[in-house]
Amino acid sequence: MRLDFSVAVHSLLYLEQKQPRLVSSRELAVSMATNPVMIRNILSVLHKQHFIHGVVGKNGGYQLDQQLDQINVGALYDLTIPPTISYARFTTGNTAAVGDGSEISRNIAETLTDLFTLADQEYRAFYHQFTIADLKQDMRQHGYFKSLSAKPH
Amino acid sequence: MRLDFSVAVHSLLYLEQKQPRLVSSRELAVSMATNPVMIRNILSVLHKQHFIHGVVGKNGGYQLDQQLDQINVGALYDLTIPPTISYARFTTGNTAAVGDGSEISRNIAETLTDLFTLADQEYRAFYHQFTIADLKQDMRQHGYFKSLSAKPH
Repeated sequence: MRLDFSVAVHSLLYLEQKQPRLVSSRELAVSMATNPVMIRNILSVLHKQHFIHGVVGKNGGYQLDQQLDQINVGALYDLTIPPTISYARFTTGNTAAVGDGSEISRNIAETLTDLFTLADQEYRAFYHQFTIADLKQDMRQHGYFKSLSAKPH
Repeated sequence: MRLDFSVAVHSLLYLEQKQPRLVSSRELAVSMATNPVMIRNILSVLHKQHFIHGVVGKNGGYQLDQQLDQINVGALYDLTIPPTISYARFTTGNTAAVGDGSEISRNIAETLTDLFTLADQEYRAFYHQFTIADLKQDMRQHGYFKSLSAKPH
């Protein structure tokens, strides 16, 4: 699933570099070294959110509609990798357990769910610190990100 | 994979509640509402790390060897869900790309990998704030965790 996010980031960076030329999904797929079909799904999401627009037809393609420093990395992450709706698959116990010593079985799923949910919020908050312009900067100068994160926050 | 972590947490909490009685993996499996075989793998990991010890034989079972407030949730998370070794499956581009306009294709994997790696470190740092005793407290009083996280940090 993380690949969806990477495809979105790659698309935005690539369209910015080629401005104002229209870029086809085939060209994007070559740059990403992946297949055009899965790219089109992500491009459709980016289009709906007004990050890009598309021109149909033989010489059609996509163009960027926003500045890279106006696009939040966390917003893009939330869009392409939505939070887990239910942690039921990842928790133990039985909320309907009865009898002696079943307190843990009854209560642990709620506690673990709260733990996972809060951890995921922290995880997403990390991405929300940056814009796509930061990613562009890091591509030119690897380690830029690490230096940002090393600062106290 | 998160289930491994949940099984570990559940095991420690359950063994603590039943101290000093020996607890079989079958009894643990009933409390977890899961199968004994996958539990035994986790118990083996907990045993190797000296969180618990096992007594073999007909009346054998497991016992807790540490205090819950001495067991870090993050340490348990790292143990049961090791960090991703490679993000190659989740990144785009081709590090060997050549020609005009291939800078993004060549460099994006490293940038995305740094981003994912740092985000994962933040995620794990969240878990490292707590001990299993905090989880026990939250089971008695749901919302305890949320109140801890709401504090400025």
